[in-house]
Amino acid sequence: MAQQKKMVDAITSMDEDFAKWYTDVCKKAELIEYTSVKGCMVIRPYGYAIWENIQRILDGMFKETGHENVCMPMFIPESLLQKEKDHVEGFAPECAWVTYGGSEKLEERLCVRPTSETLFCEHFKNVVHSHRDLPKLYNQWVSVVRWEKTTRPFLRSREFLWQEGHTLHATAEEAIEETERMLGVYTKFCQESLAIPVVQGQKTESDKFAGAERTYCIEALMHDGKALQAGTSHYFGDGFARAFEIQYLNKENQLTYPHQTSWGMTTRLIGAIIMTHGDDNGLVLPPAVAPIQAIVVPIAQHKEGVLDKANELKERLAKVCRAKIDDSDNSPGWKFAEYEMKGVPVRVEIGPKDIENNQCVLVTRHNREKTFVSLDNIEEEIIRKLEEVKEGIYQNALENRERRTYIAQNLDDITRQLEENGDGFVKAMWCGNEECEDKVKEITGVGSRCIPFEQEQLSDKCVCCGKPAKHMLYWGKAY
Amino acid sequence: MAQQKKMVDAITSMDEDFAKWYTDVCKKAELIEYTSVKGCMVIRPYGYAIWENIQRILDGMFKETGHENVCMPMFIPESLLQKEKDHVEGFAPECAWVTYGGSEKLEERLCVRPTSETLFCEHFKNVVHSHRDLPKLYNQWVSVVRWEKTTRPFLRSREFLWQEGHTLHATAEEAIEETERMLGVYTKFCQESLAIPVVQGQKTESDKFAGAERTYCIEALMHDGKALQAGTSHYFGDGFARAFEIQYLNKENQLTYPHQTSWGMTTRLIGAIIMTHGDDNGLVLPPAVAPIQAIVVPIAQHKEGVLDKANELKERLAKVCRAKIDDSDNSPGWKFAEYEMKGVPVRVEIGPKDIENNQCVLVTRHNREKTFVSLDNIEEEIIRKLEEVKEGIYQNALENRERRTYIAQNLDDITRQLEENGDGFVKAMWCGNEECEDKVKEITGVGSRCIPFEQEQLSDKCVCCGKPAKHMLYWGKAY
Repeated sequence: MAQQKKMVDAITSMDEDFAKWYTDVCKKAELIEYTSVKGCMVIRPYGYAIWENIQRILDGMFKETGHENVCMPMFIPESLLQKEKDHVEGFAPECAWVTYGGSEKLEERLCVRPTSETLFCEHFKNVVHSHRDLPKLYNQWVSVVRWEKTTRPFLRSREFLWQEGHTLHATAEEAIEETERMLGVYTKFCQESLAIPVVQGQKTESDKFAGAERTYCIEALMHDGKALQAGTSHYFGDGFARAFEIQYLNKENQLTYPHQTSWGMTTRLIGAIIMTHGDDNGLVLPPAVAPIQAIVVPIAQHKEGVLDKANELKERLAKVCRAKIDDSDNSPGWKFAEYEMKGVPVRVEIGPKDIENNQCVLVTRHNREKTFVSLDNIEEEIIRKLEEVKEGIYQNALENRERRTYIAQNLDDITRQLEENGDGFVKAMWCGNEECEDKVKEITGVGSRCIPFEQEQLSDKCVCCGKPAKHMLYWGKAY
Repeated sequence: MAQQKKMVDAITSMDEDFAKWYTDVCKKAELIEYTSVKGCMVIRPYGYAIWENIQRILDGMFKETGHENVCMPMFIPESLLQKEKDHVEGFAPECAWVTYGGSEKLEERLCVRPTSETLFCEHFKNVVHSHRDLPKLYNQWVSVVRWEKTTRPFLRSREFLWQEGHTLHATAEEAIEETERMLGVYTKFCQESLAIPVVQGQKTESDKFAGAERTYCIEALMHDGKALQAGTSHYFGDGFARAFEIQYLNKENQLTYPHQTSWGMTTRLIGAIIMTHGDDNGLVLPPAVAPIQAIVVPIAQHKEGVLDKANELKERLAKVCRAKIDDSDNSPGWKFAEYEMKGVPVRVEIGPKDIENNQCVLVTRHNREKTFVSLDNIEEEIIRKLEEVKEGIYQNALENRERRTYIAQNLDDITRQLEENGDGFVKAMWCGNEECEDKVKEITGVGSRCIPFEQEQLSDKCVCCGKPAKHMLYWGKAY
């Protein structure tokens, strides 16, 4: 049967229209589909399988660092949300409100959680009484809702999937250590599993999470030179504990306020993967989270012995990685395009000639490099190849970031470099004043991304006002 | 430090007050905690770990049978919910309605999904066009909301966690086969992983899912003689496809309506575990889903060498099962009570005398049987013991069900046996008339549970009206 399921339609090129390229990839790689629920999407099997891999790896890292999963209600009574002043101010404007249960109007309206600090606080108050009950190291995998005006798949949707860690500690030191530890976990995950290089830093005062004392973040640079916040980790001090009257008896038998953290990563990461590694042929997936790591494509599969050998090869590969075979009646050319669109890291071709020579062909998605390898130790070859892909796409991303990271001494410097070389990170000194932060954004279009942990003394003057500088900042246009 | 974290307080006895015993276990075993969100609960780490084990096993079974996970939005626009008439009638009365996004009133209100047939149908319409796109075998792990009046942890709460499978097939035969296959998966899971015997059957017309042509179910009998529906699998025919205008081109190039199924299991299963296996000392967990399968309790741990040996033992056990050690300074007696409350299947005691004799003591939770076993092959011993526990609690549950399954020829028969022997399943013939179904419930208090697949010809007359019988039914009081 020669009828083909569908041809892979070409997608918009990245350089022509990056935003259109992005949504094309989301659709054509079958990651998502739109729905009649405005601002919400269906995550399709291929997209969800990426998320399942992200979950599995991150969840393992959380459990290794002593965290336990729980599940809080999805609703927050309005009065509970209001207990911490900064927090409610930050979130109330984007809450979805449930006002009816069946045909009855609720006495108190409930918001669909935009985040769950308030629910965790209520719970902590119920279960924490003594220093022996601390620390509490909790996490949950749920979806949250924020009523955004403009939405884009994965990057900004009214509902999104995430994990939210919430921990409670006896001392500020312990809580800060936890905040930093989880930022470290996020960094490791992004760099090693997603092959996305990130900058670790701290948000400025104006950019902190609503209710936090400090917000740490990791920032990645996308292919188009825009910045994406890939994960955040917040230190709350004892602010929430005071607002919710959470106290414990310390070893000296005194009532004490504990210190708190929260940290989260979301389905945004899938957007980050697309925009960091993707190209004009579609998705390029980091092997660690790719639903299919190796796709076997038989060549001249109608010839005797080819399908048998290809299936045998697939079975061998499946023992060491996530391997699949496409033995459908679509043409090899169609299959090549299909699995390139889907970002499968390695394509494995095997035809009559290869079989004769006891070999197969490995083609790596990101650079289309072909290698002929012996079938004898194909298991080791594929593992090595997947490692090579990871290294390769990480290096590409790093080079892109470095090429697009500019140093600026004044506002003109910023504008000129962005104009000449395109969007990117700008490293520049800052006096610590919010007015300068705002002014830089107003004049040059780039906002502060973070105060990086790795500080450099680029000069001693603020890029904006010229007064003594306090920090070096990363600036950029943000997703 | 002799101070103990807390004493395990006694719980209400089952015979005294089963409902109170149930909630006591939920709280004391630290499965749940109440919240200020009426009818919703916190699932605590120990309870959630049970759910994670349930998920892992079931998800594996779904994937083995070819299903893929997806994620639909949590909201359903009112107009979408209304597309299938029976469905909306069934669910609208218990929907939670979102009417505001931020400070803006929504043009159309959204319900928080009570179930997702309508969303899946909308998606199927978008992605299914040809016979080559079928079957679609989808599942999602999410929470749903139903605005119940009276709630109980796990059994009936306003929000609960579940999986919902939704599949679309070219023919009715294939869809019916899928409906039955998934009921088979549920049955296998309940009996083999949860050690809960179930009756497979079909719901009567009046008891079908809103919009279904047929609803299959599995019914379990709890310790108190009440019935619990543990899982359902629905065959929809092409009713939803017609309502949502889902059509595909068949091989003859004709537009055709596909046939659909859905099937679900929920956190109710945790309620079923508690009420099937639990006793007056608390929870009794089936090994397959127990967060801790073996708890090592060192005896006289202050004596030299005991803690080292106990830790070494734990390490060996952890290689073959989920093992933990409690080397806290609580007394062995406190630890025994604590892990009995938490239903840990096997307790492993090791003290100075045991070490001398190169042995340890295995105590099985469900019958408190003690076995002295050599340390030489403790790995095999623990595996055998866990298998023994599973068999043991399954047999206990089966015996309880058999002891409490009555055969009735008329309404007096039903009433008398329930009075004499307590609640239970009643097997009785039925004419197929809904009026008789209602009358049996009104007079005897037991409703129809299902038409079991395994029919018996108890007589040829309906238990209620005496007219010719069509089916044997299971009747019971339901959770």
